[in-house]
Amino acid sequence: MGKRHKKFKNYIDKKAFTSPGTLVYVGKEVAESTIIKLVEFNHEFYHEKVIKTLNDCRPPVKENQVAWLDVDGIHEVNVIEAIGKHYSLHPLLLEDVLNTSQKPKLEHFGEKHLFVILKMLQFNSELNQVESEHVALVLGENFLISFQEIHQTDVFLPIFERLKASIGKTRRGKADYLFYCCCDLVVDNYFVVLEKLGEKLEELEIKIVEKPEANDQNLLYHFKRELMLVRKAVLPLRDMFGTLIREDSPLVQSTTNVYLRDVYDHILQTLDTAETYREMIENIQNIYLTSLSNKMNSVMKTLTVFTAIFMPLTFIAGIYGMNFDNMPELHHPNGYFYTLGIMVLITAALWVYFKWKKYV
Amino acid sequence: MGKRHKKFKNYIDKKAFTSPGTLVYVGKEVAESTIIKLVEFNHEFYHEKVIKTLNDCRPPVKENQVAWLDVDGIHEVNVIEAIGKHYSLHPLLLEDVLNTSQKPKLEHFGEKHLFVILKMLQFNSELNQVESEHVALVLGENFLISFQEIHQTDVFLPIFERLKASIGKTRRGKADYLFYCCCDLVVDNYFVVLEKLGEKLEELEIKIVEKPEANDQNLLYHFKRELMLVRKAVLPLRDMFGTLIREDSPLVQSTTNVYLRDVYDHILQTLDTAETYREMIENIQNIYLTSLSNKMNSVMKTLTVFTAIFMPLTFIAGIYGMNFDNMPELHHPNGYFYTLGIMVLITAALWVYFKWKKYV
Amino acid sequence: MGKRHKKFKNYIDKKAFTSPGTLVYVGKEVAESTIIKLVEFNHEFYHEKVIKTLNDCRPPVKENQVAWLDVDGIHEVNVIEAIGKHYSLHPLLLEDVLNTSQKPKLEHFGEKHLFVILKMLQFNSELNQVESEHVALVLGENFLISFQEIHQTDVFLPIFERLKASIGKTRRGKADYLFYCCCDLVVDNYFVVLEKLGEKLEELEIKIVEKPEANDQNLLYHFKRELMLVRKAVLPLRDMFGTLIREDSPLVQSTTNVYLRDVYDHILQTLDTAETYREMIENIQNIYLTSLSNKMNSVMKTLTVFTAIFMPLTFIAGIYGMNFDNMPELHHPNGYFYTLGIMVLITAALWVYFKWKKYV
Amino acid sequence: MGKRHKKFKNYIDKKAFTSPGTLVYVGKEVAESTIIKLVEFNHEFYHEKVIKTLNDCRPPVKENQVAWLDVDGIHEVNVIEAIGKHYSLHPLLLEDVLNTSQKPKLEHFGEKHLFVILKMLQFNSELNQVESEHVALVLGENFLISFQEIHQTDVFLPIFERLKASIGKTRRGKADYLFYCCCDLVVDNYFVVLEKLGEKLEELEIKIVEKPEANDQNLLYHFKRELMLVRKAVLPLRDMFGTLIREDSPLVQSTTNVYLRDVYDHILQTLDTAETYREMIENIQNIYLTSLSNKMNSVMKTLTVFTAIFMPLTFIAGIYGMNFDNMPELHHPNGYFYTLGIMVLITAALWVYFKWKKYV
Amino acid sequence: MGKRHKKFKNYIDKKAFTSPGTLVYVGKEVAESTIIKLVEFNHEFYHEKVIKTLNDCRPPVKENQVAWLDVDGIHEVNVIEAIGKHYSLHPLLLEDVLNTSQKPKLEHFGEKHLFVILKMLQFNSELNQVESEHVALVLGENFLISFQEIHQTDVFLPIFERLKASIGKTRRGKADYLFYCCCDLVVDNYFVVLEKLGEKLEELEIKIVEKPEANDQNLLYHFKRELMLVRKAVLPLRDMFGTLIREDSPLVQSTTNVYLRDVYDHILQTLDTAETYREMIENIQNIYLTSLSNKMNSVMKTLTVFTAIFMPLTFIAGIYGMNFDNMPELHHPNGYFYTLGIMVLITAALWVYFKWKKYV
Repeated sequence: MGKRHKKFKNYIDKKAFTSPGTLVYVGKEVAESTIIKLVEFNHEFYHEKVIKTLNDCRPPVKENQVAWLDVDGIHEVNVIEAIGKHYSLHPLLLEDVLNTSQKPKLEHFGEKHLFVILKMLQFNSELNQVESEHVALVLGENFLISFQEIHQTDVFLPIFERLKASIGKTRRGKADYLFYCCCDLVVDNYFVVLEKLGEKLEELEIKIVEKPEANDQNLLYHFKRELMLVRKAVLPLRDMFGTLIREDSPLVQSTTNVYLRDVYDHILQTLDTAETYREMIENIQNIYLTSLSNKMNSVMKTLTVFTAIFMPLTFIAGIYGMNFDNMPELHHPNGYFYTLGIMVLITAALWVYFKWKKYV
Repeated sequence: MGKRHKKFKNYIDKKAFTSPGTLVYVGKEVAESTIIKLVEFNHEFYHEKVIKTLNDCRPPVKENQVAWLDVDGIHEVNVIEAIGKHYSLHPLLLEDVLNTSQKPKLEHFGEKHLFVILKMLQFNSELNQVESEHVALVLGENFLISFQEIHQTDVFLPIFERLKASIGKTRRGKADYLFYCCCDLVVDNYFVVLEKLGEKLEELEIKIVEKPEANDQNLLYHFKRELMLVRKAVLPLRDMFGTLIREDSPLVQSTTNVYLRDVYDHILQTLDTAETYREMIENIQNIYLTSLSNKMNSVMKTLTVFTAIFMPLTFIAGIYGMNFDNMPELHHPNGYFYTLGIMVLITAALWVYFKWKKYV
Repeated sequence: MGKRHKKFKNYIDKKAFTSPGTLVYVGKEVAESTIIKLVEFNHEFYHEKVIKTLNDCRPPVKENQVAWLDVDGIHEVNVIEAIGKHYSLHPLLLEDVLNTSQKPKLEHFGEKHLFVILKMLQFNSELNQVESEHVALVLGENFLISFQEIHQTDVFLPIFERLKASIGKTRRGKADYLFYCCCDLVVDNYFVVLEKLGEKLEELEIKIVEKPEANDQNLLYHFKRELMLVRKAVLPLRDMFGTLIREDSPLVQSTTNVYLRDVYDHILQTLDTAETYREMIENIQNIYLTSLSNKMNSVMKTLTVFTAIFMPLTFIAGIYGMNFDNMPELHHPNGYFYTLGIMVLITAALWVYFKWKKYV
Repeated sequence: MGKRHKKFKNYIDKKAFTSPGTLVYVGKEVAESTIIKLVEFNHEFYHEKVIKTLNDCRPPVKENQVAWLDVDGIHEVNVIEAIGKHYSLHPLLLEDVLNTSQKPKLEHFGEKHLFVILKMLQFNSELNQVESEHVALVLGENFLISFQEIHQTDVFLPIFERLKASIGKTRRGKADYLFYCCCDLVVDNYFVVLEKLGEKLEELEIKIVEKPEANDQNLLYHFKRELMLVRKAVLPLRDMFGTLIREDSPLVQSTTNVYLRDVYDHILQTLDTAETYREMIENIQNIYLTSLSNKMNSVMKTLTVFTAIFMPLTFIAGIYGMNFDNMPELHHPNGYFYTLGIMVLITAALWVYFKWKKYV
Repeated sequence: MGKRHKKFKNYIDKKAFTSPGTLVYVGKEVAESTIIKLVEFNHEFYHEKVIKTLNDCRPPVKENQVAWLDVDGIHEVNVIEAIGKHYSLHPLLLEDVLNTSQKPKLEHFGEKHLFVILKMLQFNSELNQVESEHVALVLGENFLISFQEIHQTDVFLPIFERLKASIGKTRRGKADYLFYCCCDLVVDNYFVVLEKLGEKLEELEIKIVEKPEANDQNLLYHFKRELMLVRKAVLPLRDMFGTLIREDSPLVQSTTNVYLRDVYDHILQTLDTAETYREMIENIQNIYLTSLSNKMNSVMKTLTVFTAIFMPLTFIAGIYGMNFDNMPELHHPNGYFYTLGIMVLITAALWVYFKWKKYV
């Protein structure tokens, strides 16, 4: 939570109380510089270049081709500002691009730009932690701009490779189909993350059913939080895409709509799976608590059996340890052995009694 | 859960990150080959054949008869692809047919095809487990295509037999009535599954009320999960059929609508029953937890009674075990017997006290 | 639950997988034969007869009078079928009439028939159980058909008597007003049942607050289930009548609408009362659980006080029971009495301490 | 609860199964007779009289003045019936006026009468109980009829005094403004009741945090119920007034609408406060339960410390109480004192150990 | 809670039962007098003055400039009344301005005034308490009136400074943009408050996971309440701004609408964060309760181990402390040492047993 909280704190420290529309990057500081890739393609040709000067990233002029501007790294405010100017993006849009603590949203800026913020999730198996990357997409009439916090690898790599490799549906499609491909990729990743979380949860469940330990509970809460993080990344998408497929945006062709409906369907399924895991966590928690009660019961029974058996015996030994002058039993030649016999009998009787009461 | 999780994992491994519309079968591997049955009928004749070459499964041409293509097994992608081509089905439709982890859904592809995914459930009494089979239906103007994961027996057998047997309502009906019959069969099965789950639950309830044991809780959670599985199979159907009977699909005649309303009604009743069982499980769980507390109380009382009775007695014995030179009682001829008498009195008094406090 | 479950099981065994529209009675077997009463009336005359042959129960021909066909017993399928034919009722309607496990519902069959299924409830004070009777009403333009599972007495007796007795509102009304009277009667009965359940609950609450016992919990769950049964009978009525009073059915006059609104209001109030009782049960349950904890605390305190007082005393006695050669205290003439004194002091000190800690 | 339940029981006994529209008073029996006050006023004059014969309470004829008929006591059915006849009120309206167990509701009877049932609440500080009075208002074009169960004082007294005192807004207003004033008064009272409940709750909270006792829990549940009673009186008002201010009733002028919106706002705030208190009760309950657990822990620790310290000591004393012939330590001159020393050391070591484990 | 409750009590004491529209200040008594600042500006000039006589605060006449009347302190009823007269504000509007216990709301008074009540929150780090200040905004065609309870500093100071400093967007904007700036400022503050609450919660969580103490629970409930306070301040804003951005108010330009949508987005994010913290509190609470159970288990195990080891040993010592004449073991020369050896063996065996059972 610490790291995530820091992000939110960053946002507060850097952003609150500035004049609205002021562009401030609120993510963590990154040393590397922004990499901007411009891809232009249609079903006939494909051209990819890395942009060096900001002037090169102007919007495309040719009607029959799609331009994709992929911005890797959003910590250089002046770069984002320049792109904003070239494509005449609204200042509030740019503000949201830079605000890495912004939750997912979809907004129409006039009929020119469709703006979407998504969270790309990755499961870090070492730390058992879900890592989130801020991704923003701007869909224009014949272009798509994608912004991402810089990471080791470009999240959209599979799409680039698909575009380069062959003249498939993606190459033949317009900017809106490319937009769909990007959303689909992000949403498909949610399945992968959930699947890994689910595996960890099943391991934990088996462990808790077999031998619960005191700190299993903390681990369980850790997973609950990670799951909540996934849910928070996906939940807003349900409304966003639910609205998008119902309304008639001029930027989205009706043939693409059926594909967006498919993304919507995957979002629902992700939420469903997340819900299943949430219920699973709750069940494990209940099993843990019940096992605590069962254990307590078992400890209490052990204590009771020991106490109930040895108390009477010790008492009898105490009786014949008394120093009264007149205690006839003491002088009987077999008194000691009779007493031991009685003790054995009492023990046996109590043992049977506790056996019957299921204490032992 | 393990097996189910595997299914989901299969989906992730095989399907995520492929280009959209790529057909991949994600179910478990099956050795047997696909069986395709084509039934053509109207109120006058009935003809059934098993299709050998994929070319034979073309859509029907005669207007006044209904064609039913029943595809048993969906693991051969090329077969599904060929059928898709013959009937000009949308690639996303075929993707969903193959995706056995797809949750139930209803989708209109234009005005030509009504596409429905259902889950056929079976209760495996040996494993106390609900087993789910992926079923897909495509309703066209005068044909119905049904896809099912291959299993020992065809799930639609009762309908085939009814068709063959006599010229009833099903023979006289159109493709939409046949579609209704298939849905009705699947939904009726939910009652059967729930009924068996309910029987098991009642047995468990009686057992837990009578003598709760430590691992009853795990069994209870097992049933909770199975019930959840049924619920997850049925819940989406409520919206699907709720929408279907409200909207005016050109593929569904108004006379059939009243029958679909009946299916909708059965779906509601299934959900109702599932809800009742969920509440029942919760109640059993509470009874279990309370019985744990009651047992703990009873153990504690046993311990307290033993301790409270023998402690004073042992103390008195200890007193007269002391070696002081001057202890007048020790020399009284009946001191020993008086002491024993006092011990009996104390025991009696404490017994009465604990009786009154309802400890014994 | 057993009996109820049986009903549901009956339904599964007899009904599932038959062709839709097949008429099968699913209630329990009854020996007595069906009694059909036909009442014809308007504000001028009243005529009542018991029908012997099924041909006599044809729909009325005279416009200015209301016909009420009261069918007592639905286990004779051929009788129901004949009535269905005479009044041209839809097969699915008849199916629901016969299906005693069908939950309450309201359905329009065209503009000719308004079909309602209700559950008549009775509280069996001996078994502390709510008993449910399946009631179906079919409202036509100038007739009403009522179906009921046969019982000792006709549930609509008060209405018959009111009709016979005088020319009141019911006699002057049309079939829709009669329909309202029947619904009103059933709904009013819910109040009676809830009132009796409430009485039992209050008794139980007082008992549990005063002296909770181990099996009170089971009784509480029993009432919870009975209450749930009432709720399940009433809940669907809210939507049914909510819709009925909003929509403009040709079978219901606007003057009757205000009365149906009154029924709707009573349904809301019933649900409200049921909700109150549900919360009451939850509260009693919490009180019960807390009292278990309080009792455990009290048992533990008793144990602790006994242990803490006698342990030091027994230890001191043990000290002076040791057999060391050189133990000067033993030879002091008043050593024994001093020791006893010290023991009394220790006991007093501990007693004060536990008094202060509120243990005794 | 007993008293309230009785009210409900009364309703069942007297009202159920009577023909609809039959007027029966279901409240508790009252000896005093009904007091009817008729106030006529406009901005120019104010006239108030107590009505002796029922004929005097006819509806007003003069257009430019408002008539307010205040009926104190609803147990004389014939009086209510007469008023109903004079003002041509619907029989179901009168039924609801008499039914003191009727929950709050708002109903339009045509365009002539707006009918509202409210619950006037009072907090009885002695019994810590909320007392509810049934109030009904009928708004006509230029008159208002108010019905109330008879009580020590007229609930609308402040409004009468305001009317009499000066030509304020109320005098200048029409019947709908007067209607608003009555509703406002009732709703303002909810704040007072909640405020007193809140005070009691805060006292209880402080007590429970400081020293929880076994029967605090019952007190808490008592308050929970009283709060629920308030909530049940207010909750229906939200929908009632929410609808009233949205729809365009001919009886309510648009200038009055803004005032009704204010009442609506107060209702929301009341519900908000009730919700806060409900959460507060839940929190107190949790604090109580946790404090029980904490106490149990502390009792257990006391027990463990006593047991763990004295058991080893008693054991050592037991060792040297054995009567073996050959026990060299016994004959050592300082054996006794060495043994005592070892006992002191063991006690100290255990004490330090339990101190470290936070047991003491 | 005490202070807050007082506020509510004040409201009840001073306000309930007065005639509607009567202006009464219900906040706490303040000695300082009201400060009224009037700022007039457009993109060309900026003029600020402190108003001395109430006549000076008349509405602006010049069309092309914006007037902002900032009223610091609302305890002087006559001042508020005068402003109300000058700007012809509705009496109910003024009532709400003065009512510091009024929850946030947005109301249109005709097409002339848009009225908004907000709660400015501040986190008092010393008392760990959220402090709330009542803020009211009235937006007219070319003016904005802001009311605030007097405090050390003006909450809108940052906006004044921004206006004075340079000709930014705020100077160039109309009254509606200024209105947006004020709302944005208040909403941004919620993030700051939540961030501080979050920090405190994380500290508490770490503490409870490491070493839970009895009164941590009370602290947790304290934070729960503070969080609830924030939620109660923010929740109504969601609907208020949700409605504002959908509807077409003549007072809000369409260019400002996109900014209000941004505020709306921030409100959603605040609620989201509050929800996250609420879940966090619940989790901490569960961890606390489970840790109590775990601790109890550990105490019980300690007790059981001590009892189970020393009881048999003491019993054996008791045996050989008996005074029977004939006890052969006593006379064996190594009897004592053999007995000690057996005791060591028993201890070792029990130790191993409890080690295996994970008791030690």
